[in-house]
Amino acid sequence: MTEDQQPIRVGVYGGAGYAGLDLVEILAKHPQVTLVFATSDTYGGQAVPGTNLRYIPFAEADMDAVDAVFLALPHKASAPVAAKALAKGLKVLDLSADLRLNTPEAYEKWYGTPHPNPELLPVPYGLPEINRANIVKSPIIAVPGCYPTTTILGLYPLLCSGAIEPGTPIIVDAKSGVSGAGREPKPNTHFVEVFGNFSPYSPGRSHRHVGEIEQEITKIDPNLGTLIFTPHLLPVDRGLMASIYVTLKADFDSADMQALYEQTYTHEPLVNVLPPKEQATLRHVVRTNACAISLTPVSPRYLHITSVTDNLRKGASGQAVQDFNLIFGFEEITALL
Amino acid sequence: MTEDQQPIRVGVYGGAGYAGLDLVEILAKHPQVTLVFATSDTYGGQAVPGTNLRYIPFAEADMDAVDAVFLALPHKASAPVAAKALAKGLKVLDLSADLRLNTPEAYEKWYGTPHPNPELLPVPYGLPEINRANIVKSPIIAVPGCYPTTTILGLYPLLCSGAIEPGTPIIVDAKSGVSGAGREPKPNTHFVEVFGNFSPYSPGRSHRHVGEIEQEITKIDPNLGTLIFTPHLLPVDRGLMASIYVTLKADFDSADMQALYEQTYTHEPLVNVLPPKEQATLRHVVRTNACAISLTPVSPRYLHITSVTDNLRKGASGQAVQDFNLIFGFEEITALL
Amino acid sequence: MTEDQQPIRVGVYGGAGYAGLDLVEILAKHPQVTLVFATSDTYGGQAVPGTNLRYIPFAEADMDAVDAVFLALPHKASAPVAAKALAKGLKVLDLSADLRLNTPEAYEKWYGTPHPNPELLPVPYGLPEINRANIVKSPIIAVPGCYPTTTILGLYPLLCSGAIEPGTPIIVDAKSGVSGAGREPKPNTHFVEVFGNFSPYSPGRSHRHVGEIEQEITKIDPNLGTLIFTPHLLPVDRGLMASIYVTLKADFDSADMQALYEQTYTHEPLVNVLPPKEQATLRHVVRTNACAISLTPVSPRYLHITSVTDNLRKGASGQAVQDFNLIFGFEEITALL
Amino acid sequence: MTEDQQPIRVGVYGGAGYAGLDLVEILAKHPQVTLVFATSDTYGGQAVPGTNLRYIPFAEADMDAVDAVFLALPHKASAPVAAKALAKGLKVLDLSADLRLNTPEAYEKWYGTPHPNPELLPVPYGLPEINRANIVKSPIIAVPGCYPTTTILGLYPLLCSGAIEPGTPIIVDAKSGVSGAGREPKPNTHFVEVFGNFSPYSPGRSHRHVGEIEQEITKIDPNLGTLIFTPHLLPVDRGLMASIYVTLKADFDSADMQALYEQTYTHEPLVNVLPPKEQATLRHVVRTNACAISLTPVSPRYLHITSVTDNLRKGASGQAVQDFNLIFGFEEITALL
Repeated sequence: MTEDQQPIRVGVYGGAGYAGLDLVEILAKHPQVTLVFATSDTYGGQAVPGTNLRYIPFAEADMDAVDAVFLALPHKASAPVAAKALAKGLKVLDLSADLRLNTPEAYEKWYGTPHPNPELLPVPYGLPEINRANIVKSPIIAVPGCYPTTTILGLYPLLCSGAIEPGTPIIVDAKSGVSGAGREPKPNTHFVEVFGNFSPYSPGRSHRHVGEIEQEITKIDPNLGTLIFTPHLLPVDRGLMASIYVTLKADFDSADMQALYEQTYTHEPLVNVLPPKEQATLRHVVRTNACAISLTPVSPRYLHITSVTDNLRKGASGQAVQDFNLIFGFEEITALL
Repeated sequence: MTEDQQPIRVGVYGGAGYAGLDLVEILAKHPQVTLVFATSDTYGGQAVPGTNLRYIPFAEADMDAVDAVFLALPHKASAPVAAKALAKGLKVLDLSADLRLNTPEAYEKWYGTPHPNPELLPVPYGLPEINRANIVKSPIIAVPGCYPTTTILGLYPLLCSGAIEPGTPIIVDAKSGVSGAGREPKPNTHFVEVFGNFSPYSPGRSHRHVGEIEQEITKIDPNLGTLIFTPHLLPVDRGLMASIYVTLKADFDSADMQALYEQTYTHEPLVNVLPPKEQATLRHVVRTNACAISLTPVSPRYLHITSVTDNLRKGASGQAVQDFNLIFGFEEITALL
Repeated sequence: MTEDQQPIRVGVYGGAGYAGLDLVEILAKHPQVTLVFATSDTYGGQAVPGTNLRYIPFAEADMDAVDAVFLALPHKASAPVAAKALAKGLKVLDLSADLRLNTPEAYEKWYGTPHPNPELLPVPYGLPEINRANIVKSPIIAVPGCYPTTTILGLYPLLCSGAIEPGTPIIVDAKSGVSGAGREPKPNTHFVEVFGNFSPYSPGRSHRHVGEIEQEITKIDPNLGTLIFTPHLLPVDRGLMASIYVTLKADFDSADMQALYEQTYTHEPLVNVLPPKEQATLRHVVRTNACAISLTPVSPRYLHITSVTDNLRKGASGQAVQDFNLIFGFEEITALL
Repeated sequence: MTEDQQPIRVGVYGGAGYAGLDLVEILAKHPQVTLVFATSDTYGGQAVPGTNLRYIPFAEADMDAVDAVFLALPHKASAPVAAKALAKGLKVLDLSADLRLNTPEAYEKWYGTPHPNPELLPVPYGLPEINRANIVKSPIIAVPGCYPTTTILGLYPLLCSGAIEPGTPIIVDAKSGVSGAGREPKPNTHFVEVFGNFSPYSPGRSHRHVGEIEQEITKIDPNLGTLIFTPHLLPVDRGLMASIYVTLKADFDSADMQALYEQTYTHEPLVNVLPPKEQATLRHVVRTNACAISLTPVSPRYLHITSVTDNLRKGASGQAVQDFNLIFGFEEITALL
């Protein structure tokens, strides 16, 4: 814990969205945190669940009253707040997309708009299992998206060992619960539209998370083939599955990958490699802060990986708190198990 | 059929809402109907499902091109269109709330706004099973709401026979699928808010349909006690249940009501009285145009009635077509079975 | 805590049913409990979730290794185990129906079979909010059913104050998530049968919980009228709502009941009386060990009460642990908040 | 139609399973069919929905009273009935797996048991869009499985044109509604297990439909690489999606495939190729007898195909009736549109 044993004073921007709600819930249980404020322009004045606070408008949030801020704001709105907080010496956990891509050019390519604060880039990518060393040293963290978290963790042991055959596609057929689409009511999140339905969206290489996933996986293995990524909307409230299909190099055998994954993640408290034959399902992870992974060796060269997270937890707020714990030197899983 | 055997030319206002969509689907199958247009300001230009038409904006609808109009518009917007259509000599099937209450005073009481066209009132209430004689003679019909349809049909045989003990409350615990809340996205119809949840709303006597139900049931039996009506939002897309609890007069026996209901509805093609012991469920009626009713004699004086409809069919569009068939002299169930 | 500060050694019979699973989850977090075994004949050998144990067959459970047993067994199978455990000096928390009715005659009436161990009756009814004084003194507790818990807590302040008009019916329209039907696959719990459906069952006075509810409410107010109770199957996994409609005596006013309920439950940590106008929903209680109650004064004489619980928590396992805490002198809400 | 214009007398074996229920519903609307009997040992005596019949036990079905039989029986039970019916000169539509594989060896490999009637093999595969010429000439048809139908139709234009690069894997990430698992209650179809969950099963190459798919696709294109097929259980009642990922030969361009698919299926009334950019969803096909397909050209060499059906309709009973219509010379889509 910090020297003077004072709790860390924390503010949450965007505390009434779905990621914000889970964030508030986790922080309320965190023994070294005092939640000072949570902002919401839409729900201003209403009670912040599980606390004695009420949501305050964005304009009333007082950065001088806190040591750290979590930003669960829309992209483009988040970076300026991050810049201001950083300038005041606060620690910044940004759950938006604004700081995930390393260059303004990449941001503009995937988000179709100039980066609001290019001077902030690059920022350490807040996936502890692949980037812990950089996270602990940084005052500002780009908390990864839900699809990238689940996909990258599903691929990571292969990437580290260079197991994937160059030039072969990496196919990710992904499925997400509806909370991933945000709390603002939209036609595609209307109950009647989702109930009994299942639908792909942003297929192929059109989803914004493609840029983020590719950036991170090619850092580890620069010889990868094309990423093909198709997300689908699942008629459940929360939970995300990345079904990954890869081709291994001839000198690898898919039957050996179980041991590789178990070894890679053996000391990771928030990644569970399931035993052979047990398939990862949403039920394994919903309302937890962990990722679960199962492997199916289809043939010696072909491996099928199923990686699952709770999109609001390990895919958003849980991971943000994991990063927070690292930055402040708390046990990494505090409030997360 | 009409003398010259020409199909009836029909226009649908508000054809892209949930009731409008079902209306268009039914009308497309109707052998004596030509659907000329369907309006939608939100979905203008998009295909009208199951037809070769595209939605046109409200302003472009041509009343001179049709013989009849169905109005699936919001309340307050509907009555002026009804008035205009009536003046042009069209037949009008109004699915909004605007024409259901018989007086402007009642309308203002329940809808909190002056009636836009008080000169239209009263209009025959379009529940054929209780008002067929007046429907067939009228060029304009107030198509009943979903809760009133289901509740009134559940009570009707008792009302006709004066079986309910005066001064005792009539308790209606109702449950509706989410399509009843309309297609416009709202916080309470967001998938995440509804999934896994069940919630009462407008409890006691605060829901607007209380006025409509009371108006109709007291016409048949003026000595009724208080109507207590609490609707709930069910996590399903369609279907509505009214669970009704009544006290009978001492000279009635709840065990005799099965025969009374069967007799009352024996010639009604769209009301099914289930055999004793079989309970009415949503599954009995979803995607049909019928109402199903089951009775439980709890004690000689206490009767429990379960009445179910598809809120978009017998509770809205199916009933509108049933009224349409009556007005134009077609077989009442054309396109409905 | 007990004198020697040793943790209480606990065994769970029937630990793989839905109530058993929640029980194991709660007990695993309980700081004064060591879970020694959990039985399941169906799942014998499989891991007990959240623990290092594996399910053992019923026949292998060793009563001599524990201080207390929780019985989440089918009725008729439970009482003999309770008798044996009691004889060995263990504390017994019975979640089955076997000990809830006070006489063998009542048991035979509602369960259609002679009581297996009539010598055990009567046993204190384990609803702490109405019977705490007797629970703390007893080595054996009949943990209430989910419908009775939710209904009785919804009525209790009225019963204590004698507010209900004698001779008027007490109407309970109840709805339960599917886990209430147990984990064994049956036609009525098949996903396809429940999805998109909503159905009443055991209507009127035919459900077995009628006997249990009546027994307890008439102990407090012997002048009550007929209980009318119709449960329904909700297409959700967990959560239970009792929608209660009562008539008050002329010298009571429904508008005063909010204060009465707040006062009655002011010191109860697991009963939340919601503020006026806020309606109780499943979302208020799912995955919690509390009951939430909202009141709607329909007219001075008519009161509508909505009472909700998680059927597996306050309706089963949470309540069992609450009773356990009382018996052993732990803080009542240990492991429950 | 048949010479004497008499309706075809039809019997359904296994008429109370989910495929059987849809079959009965379709046949009841078929203008050239008289449904003579439907068997069910489980539901014997109960009403056959939408008809005046009652289910009869298997043993009471009279083959002499019918011209054709539909077999919606479990595999192994079906073939002996097919053999008997064929011997009597009846037409046989077998919806089980018994006749789909062309050799007893293949059957034994995938079903783990000797074929009950090897003398029947091979039987024409009843997917009209790829095998119409053989279907019309045969008295007995092997109606395809739901996954094979959806997958093969999604691949067919590519197979015919030899577009797929040999040696590259064909990846099928499939998702099915729960009715695909049958009506008999099992732990994995319990509502509580499926609700809010999503889970893979029989991954890689272990599902029995792999053999059936490979048999048919390699008949058309013998140079295909490995089929990787992972089905998942979707929390919906009906609907099936096959998400297919393929690599094209260098002289093909994925951007040209839209035209190829449109051309291939231009005269197929039950296969809808969606316009570019529109993604196929369950909503496109549920409760219809059609397949809908959408294409995403990911890169010139990589094509992503989404193919959807209602697993009980085009994936089972609708297709069986389509085959029936072909055999008897009726319009192919009779009772299916």
